[in-house]
Amino acid sequence: MELLTWPIGAAVEVLGDRWSLLLLRDVIFADRRYFRALLTGSAEGIASNILADRLVRLVDAGLLTRGTAARGQRARFGLTEAGIRTVPVLFALGTWALDWRASDAPCEHQQVLREDGPVFLEQVMDELRTRHLGAPAKVYDNPGALERLAAAYAGACEPTSAD
Amino acid sequence: MELLTWPIGAAVEVLGDRWSLLLLRDVIFADRRYFRALLTGSAEGIASNILADRLVRLVDAGLLTRGTAARGQRARFGLTEAGIRTVPVLFALGTWALDWRASDAPCEHQQVLREDGPVFLEQVMDELRTRHLGAPAKVYDNPGALERLAAAYAGACEPTSAD
Repeated sequence: MELLTWPIGAAVEVLGDRWSLLLLRDVIFADRRYFRALLTGSAEGIASNILADRLVRLVDAGLLTRGTAARGQRARFGLTEAGIRTVPVLFALGTWALDWRASDAPCEHQQVLREDGPVFLEQVMDELRTRHLGAPAKVYDNPGALERLAAAYAGACEPTSAD
Repeated sequence: MELLTWPIGAAVEVLGDRWSLLLLRDVIFADRRYFRALLTGSAEGIASNILADRLVRLVDAGLLTRGTAARGQRARFGLTEAGIRTVPVLFALGTWALDWRASDAPCEHQQVLREDGPVFLEQVMDELRTRHLGAPAKVYDNPGALERLAAAYAGACEPTSAD
């Protein structure tokens, strides 16, 4: 891995993995913070051993934090700033798919993004900083970027049953 | 895979793979168009069976074309428009790594991009359309976006030996 000095290569070492990207998506946009929520909520049906492995990898890579949990309590995961800054990567992926992968269910939140662009991305990241890092909430003319995304995610964009 | 109606999930089906992303990077920025060039030029040392598999996948997914080759001649690969439009994804990855993965060799072409932004991305994609799709060259004030990237790629950003 010592050859990966080129930044795209370095990014791919961490983010060039299907399950890691899907987990970041679920933490970021669906606010799933616990192992069980990530397992049972997975639209793609992640296996528990893969979920455990990828969570360790994402924590080791500095994208997620694992909260300390008292005995018998569940550990809560959170995004680091480096994790929050994967939002533009996820949106680039989503925008690409909107253009190039035909879908029966075009997704409102991606359409929202396409119209509002980079300002919306910044707002999403600021809201994640408030939610995950305890940063003071910034004031926006049109608050609730994450809520709008979550509503779209829970609606037309997510399968309604697991079959 | 029928559950992947959400666009990020759909994109990850194609692009959530380390080797596919690295191959797209090499075709796009290093202009490697032949199997052997992709094999021997791979900084990460891709194995020939993995290279063959990923090229088939990328052709099947509509990101690459495989030119017809006469008997005994090598087939030349090219980007489709869908392949060219992965440029913003690769740059989002590279920009993320520049910020979050310490590197001994900061890469000039990513710095170039960060300064010039979306206009530079559009120019890169237009030059790829000329190179891969035969589109007429557009006139830019500052031509040679791909050449600038290739120079940076061949210089500080790529390892000088395979060890």
